[in-house]
Amino acid sequence: MGKLLVVGSVALDTVRTPFGEVSEVLGGSATYFSTAASFFTPVDLIAVVGKDFPEEHVAFLKSRRIDLAGLERKSGLTFRWQGEYTHHMNEAHTLDTRLNVFESFRPTIPESYRAPEVLFLGNIDPDLQLDVLNRVSRPKLVACDTMNFWIERKRDALWRVLEKVDVLVINDGEARALGQSPNLVQVAKDILARGPKHLIVKRGEYGVLMFTSGQTFGTPALPLEDVKDPTGAGDTFAGGMMGYLAFTGDFSGASFRQAAVFGSVMASFTVEAFSLDRLRKLDYKEIEARFREFKRLTHFEDLS
Amino acid sequence: MGKLLVVGSVALDTVRTPFGEVSEVLGGSATYFSTAASFFTPVDLIAVVGKDFPEEHVAFLKSRRIDLAGLERKSGLTFRWQGEYTHHMNEAHTLDTRLNVFESFRPTIPESYRAPEVLFLGNIDPDLQLDVLNRVSRPKLVACDTMNFWIERKRDALWRVLEKVDVLVINDGEARALGQSPNLVQVAKDILARGPKHLIVKRGEYGVLMFTSGQTFGTPALPLEDVKDPTGAGDTFAGGMMGYLAFTGDFSGASFRQAAVFGSVMASFTVEAFSLDRLRKLDYKEIEARFREFKRLTHFEDLS
Repeated sequence: MGKLLVVGSVALDTVRTPFGEVSEVLGGSATYFSTAASFFTPVDLIAVVGKDFPEEHVAFLKSRRIDLAGLERKSGLTFRWQGEYTHHMNEAHTLDTRLNVFESFRPTIPESYRAPEVLFLGNIDPDLQLDVLNRVSRPKLVACDTMNFWIERKRDALWRVLEKVDVLVINDGEARALGQSPNLVQVAKDILARGPKHLIVKRGEYGVLMFTSGQTFGTPALPLEDVKDPTGAGDTFAGGMMGYLAFTGDFSGASFRQAAVFGSVMASFTVEAFSLDRLRKLDYKEIEARFREFKRLTHFEDLS
Repeated sequence: MGKLLVVGSVALDTVRTPFGEVSEVLGGSATYFSTAASFFTPVDLIAVVGKDFPEEHVAFLKSRRIDLAGLERKSGLTFRWQGEYTHHMNEAHTLDTRLNVFESFRPTIPESYRAPEVLFLGNIDPDLQLDVLNRVSRPKLVACDTMNFWIERKRDALWRVLEKVDVLVINDGEARALGQSPNLVQVAKDILARGPKHLIVKRGEYGVLMFTSGQTFGTPALPLEDVKDPTGAGDTFAGGMMGYLAFTGDFSGASFRQAAVFGSVMASFTVEAFSLDRLRKLDYKEIEARFREFKRLTHFEDLS
């Protein structure tokens, strides 16, 4: 059971979808990531919140296997995001972003966090990602996320990060922007030639593609009747995937495929409620049952 | 090896994509369908062309296992479609449609066609679909396609068709329009309650979902490096799928899953060249090899 270190954002979200709205609820990429991962393995979290961050959220994170020694509390306000989804739920429309304390975030790494077996660099400034990577002893597996903001503004720094990571997890729009091609196979060739051994492309309701030298894996998302709020689905996916890999310590192709399915399983729960509400009441038996549902969804007999 | 009857369009297409353009090439839904199906089983084709339809295309169709007793040649011009695709290749933009002889198409059914084992009703007027269905002896399996034009204009007639078919094959935009919901699981429940036992939803580069009472199957499309022209991919999918089902005569869930993969295999070839050019030089060994590629793409180990 390997220690998993994640650095990223903890936020308060205000979200409207056709099925309801919530105000100032628990959110942030590292929150979804670490909660999902904590079903598989202990997590060390590095993030920053403001003085206004509610104690109940700290208590929730503590109730999971999430170490909060790296959760800095600064004077000022917590990062806030406001967004909405229309009926076609695959894309969020950001209404407002207030970085607040997250704007000047400089990750500090507690002594107890310095030897992670698996490291996940959330979508912060690539220079900060590199800084974190340089300040821990080399993990067995390093993965990162990024976003269009950094792809557009700090492409060179981002490539320097990618040279040093094993796994890049991004959504398909970001993959196309980074690879500067509409064709994902060409994008994957380009990215895999520059460092990462695995490119994982998140496609929302259409599932996931994983490109590895010489082989590709794909799974659809589980068709769900009750999708309330897609916020955090991609971060939950990454958390489930990396959590499973850290848990097994098995980084073979077969293990990565199972990990991508566990990530998809976790994301399928997250979207069924607002904020992290579905994950709050989830148990491991449900995760296994839904993994088997993915198997039934995708199975077909090979040719004899 | 069951006889498969298809009714639909034969057309001359003018297509532009980022990778080239072609003018007045062989196209039409029934053309793609019957060519794809002919790799698995003999096909009886009902369609209409004008006096201007090139003999070389007739010769090509004859060279496949496609019976042309039902290919009517009327005075006037052949149906023409003109379209283009931008870099995001998942959606065609129609520039011009000239129905010509197809506008007054009234399918005539040759005596030798009257006892098909499998019937595919292409996306013609639902009243004509019903007419064809009533004029043949009840096939073991009936499938149909439709399009937004009929969903908007002849919804009642379309539902009368759907009451009598076993399989509905449509793309995801059409499914949402027909089911009047953005949620495909709800759409599937609605449609399966009204007649069809299987709803197959084509999602282009994102693959296929198949809804059947009590179980769902999904497969991603094969990621391809070289996509030249998506025209006809959906019709090719349907042809491969129905051709395989007609060939085996096995309409079990397991067989439908394999059929959906064979459909996806055939579509993956069609998009690699303009018109039917990739299918022209395809052999069955390549089809089997790509089926196995789909197996490798989607396989993951179940939980022990």
